Amino acid sequence: MKASVEKRIKFAPLREKVLSAEEAAKIVLNGMHIGTCGTPTAGCPDSFFGALAKRGEQGESFKVDIWSCAPLSQTIDGKLVEVGLLNRRLAHQANPLLAKEANKGKVHYSDMGAAWVPLEVRKGSLGKLDLAVIEAVEVTEEGHVVPTINVGDEATFLRYADNVIIEINMNMPQELSGIHDIYIPEEPPNRKPIPLISVSDRIGVPYIEVAPEKIKGIIISDKEVNAPGRAPIDEMSRAIAKNVVNFFDEEERHGRLPENLLPFQTGLGALGGAILNELDGSRFENLEVHSALLDDGVLDLIDSGKIKAADGVGLFFTKDALEKLAKNVERYKEKLILRPIDIVNSPEVIRRLGVIALNTAIEVDIYGHVNSSHVGGSRIMTGVAGSIEFSRNGYLSIFMTPSVSKKGAISAIVPMVPHVDHTEHEVNVIVTEQGLADLRGLDPRERAMRIIEECAHPDYKPLLWDYFHEAEALGGHEPHILSKAFSFHLRLAETETMKT
Amino acid sequence: MKASVEKRIKFAPLREKVLSAEEAAKIVLNGMHIGTCGTPTAGCPDSFFGALAKRGEQGESFKVDIWSCAPLSQTIDGKLVEVGLLNRRLAHQANPLLAKEANKGKVHYSDMGAAWVPLEVRKGSLGKLDLAVIEAVEVTEEGHVVPTINVGDEATFLRYADNVIIEINMNMPQELSGIHDIYIPEEPPNRKPIPLISVSDRIGVPYIEVAPEKIKGIIISDKEVNAPGRAPIDEMSRAIAKNVVNFFDEEERHGRLPENLLPFQTGLGALGGAILNELDGSRFENLEVHSALLDDGVLDLIDSGKIKAADGVGLFFTKDALEKLAKNVERYKEKLILRPIDIVNSPEVIRRLGVIALNTAIEVDIYGHVNSSHVGGSRIMTGVAGSIEFSRNGYLSIFMTPSVSKKGAISAIVPMVPHVDHTEHEVNVIVTEQGLADLRGLDPRERAMRIIEECAHPDYKPLLWDYFHEAEALGGHEPHILSKAFSFHLRLAETETMKT
Repeated sequence: MKASVEKRIKFAPLREKVLSAEEAAKIVLNGMHIGTCGTPTAGCPDSFFGALAKRGEQGESFKVDIWSCAPLSQTIDGKLVEVGLLNRRLAHQANPLLAKEANKGKVHYSDMGAAWVPLEVRKGSLGKLDLAVIEAVEVTEEGHVVPTINVGDEATFLRYADNVIIEINMNMPQELSGIHDIYIPEEPPNRKPIPLISVSDRIGVPYIEVAPEKIKGIIISDKEVNAPGRAPIDEMSRAIAKNVVNFFDEEERHGRLPENLLPFQTGLGALGGAILNELDGSRFENLEVHSALLDDGVLDLIDSGKIKAADGVGLFFTKDALEKLAKNVERYKEKLILRPIDIVNSPEVIRRLGVIALNTAIEVDIYGHVNSSHVGGSRIMTGVAGSIEFSRNGYLSIFMTPSVSKKGAISAIVPMVPHVDHTEHEVNVIVTEQGLADLRGLDPRERAMRIIEECAHPDYKPLLWDYFHEAEALGGHEPHILSKAFSFHLRLAETETMKT
Repeated sequence: MKASVEKRIKFAPLREKVLSAEEAAKIVLNGMHIGTCGTPTAGCPDSFFGALAKRGEQGESFKVDIWSCAPLSQTIDGKLVEVGLLNRRLAHQANPLLAKEANKGKVHYSDMGAAWVPLEVRKGSLGKLDLAVIEAVEVTEEGHVVPTINVGDEATFLRYADNVIIEINMNMPQELSGIHDIYIPEEPPNRKPIPLISVSDRIGVPYIEVAPEKIKGIIISDKEVNAPGRAPIDEMSRAIAKNVVNFFDEEERHGRLPENLLPFQTGLGALGGAILNELDGSRFENLEVHSALLDDGVLDLIDSGKIKAADGVGLFFTKDALEKLAKNVERYKEKLILRPIDIVNSPEVIRRLGVIALNTAIEVDIYGHVNSSHVGGSRIMTGVAGSIEFSRNGYLSIFMTPSVSKKGAISAIVPMVPHVDHTEHEVNVIVTEQGLADLRGLDPRERAMRIIEECAHPDYKPLLWDYFHEAEALGGHEPHILSKAFSFHLRLAETETMKT
């Protein structure tokens, strides 16, 4: 065995368990429940799942269930689907092929909130977890496992699974060790308060404990880290972000937010980048981030001193950012922490920290209900992920969307959303590039007037007013005309535009 | 001043503030935000609000906003509406007149989750609270206030309101003192864990602190306690309750619930009574209740030893039960505790205790979304109250409804609910008298098949299967036909039955 591998498997007895991905993948039997985690671009044990997919390509006939709080790599959420091995997928996903097959009813997909996976595993409500497979940077002297750039539901998986496969990625810097903070709550009736009080608190240990006898194999992989760089910020995202940060400014001036705001969710992509950018140029200092995936922008703002602490479940870092982090783990580890999904997304923790929840919507209706998952009510795009826990338990729950899409053919403000992921009971503020509607304390009719006035695109305002006034005349606390509630969507299906 | 009153106002300086309800009601100015609490049958400061209503009847023209987590008395949610004094009502209500006027758009009603009122008051997001009015059994030697049978949002109201009126009800036994446990969390970023770990824990003090200078008047009232006795248990409720308790039985046998279950929500009325009754006859011992309002049945099962501890925000006790409690407060107070709504309904506490959430639905759809507030999508019946927090954070989230109502003209299982209060992401189990559908881990199509098969009334199964199969053939992860999604409701409006 090479010295470099020995350096990664510090607990000598486990070195005997090193095997090839192909050998490891043989452990999988038909009908198994497999827990794994990662991000779409990094952190997944792809050698293992690549070898598993090969068994399917070679004509073996079996099916597995994959449980994960995270959107997984193309190898798992794409390839396994393509070769027909995936029976059921629990929780978050963002893969077009998986979505397509779920929409056909070919893959059983259950869009549970991301943080529910470890909860349900610990309760045992979905049957036992046969196998956990995770990517790691090292096995410590004590036989503990240090994950790579994602924690997700891995800690619970390793504790509760019957069998464990570890995939050590030699291209993930071993120096990441120290960045993780692992804490698994006890189950009721023995659960104690989660002792996390501040974003920068460390409440657990920097590794995942696993019983050595459960480890059935260790794969050595050299998969490249290939997280994309930051998305360029477009004008639409910039306009939405400006409205959001102006709102923070107003709230702080009225004494409804502290001077350094409260920990906020940050998204990936152009909109997430735009918000970080606006905050960077704002008067706010000593910011804190409490979110799911953190990208390079967060690291930059930690470096510049704008962000004083950030925690999340995983990193969406480029190779450069990852190396910078690895070289300075001792310095970063008090400011940048990776935790289990059920701690980051814990209702208890989100409520206590007072997180400002920033989530995106596919569409919102005039009364403030939000669809963030199903186009046209039927076809799923991505899972709701952590938006459920953040919006329900945050200090402020903000939903953002461009007011129109498809060159104006689709309005994001509609009379009634045909799928509700977030109800009127948890949506405080809606933001588009047109403006911002603060809905707190309003009744449904007031909400409708504010949303149409502030957020709808001018092209759709007359149609929305028509619907609202006609419904209002018929009466009701939240006036609707059931025969016309989906008129926008039906028109779109017929004429390819929601416009008349 | 009579000795009996002096005995109730132990802090002598406050005795000078005793005044009539009419005098006290003069404090109210146009546009004021007033916080109050109670239950529909007891606990409300009705002398004060009766005198306020009289000002309206006598032709004075002004409007007030009433904030309360609780459904209030006829004097407040009925009479104030009748005389045109109510401008806006926040959070839970269950008054037919208030609902009627909200449905006309004459009263601004915002159906916030019950526990959100104290949260928003502390944040200051809805403006300042001008006045708090609460019913009390006594003012202690230190000038603290001991509420009567309800805590609700009173603790936060007394701390944050500019002015306070106390209404001492001489018919509420003073011996209730000791039953309350008051704890107000700090606001972020200074919030600490709520130290409640078990239903029987006391984490605060048995009174509400209030700055004496804020008390602008103390009214002495002699309102009768008139909570109704227990509702007789009908066959429908018994059948639903049997299905629920059989499910508990199965869950415990499979090791998914502890031997004494977990703390459960208990409802009022026939269904709540039926569930207590079934549990009383079951093999389960040492039960715990964690709920909003507790009725006589809970006290009986504490007496019989079946329930080892219960906490809630208020008591829905008959006079007899109240007297029994008052006579034995020392004995009961370790087993029966009244807390603030934002502690009982706290996501942190519900999740930690592992509460079994038992809520009722108006209707549920084939994919598991629940409407618990708006008939026909537009007309509100009652607020969602604490069902939001319980269903989202409970260990198990169960929704119950008879499969049909109006002599079979209305099916409680429909293709799509026209108003969503609880989404597919938080509904674990649906129960009707027909059966029980365990939805955990299922995809939407599987849920539809299970709900139709197990829960729908036989009269409606063919219609539901028709819709589902037609939608399924068109495809989609959660297949819907938007032009037919509300066919049941439209048929009902046209023909007075959902049947074809």
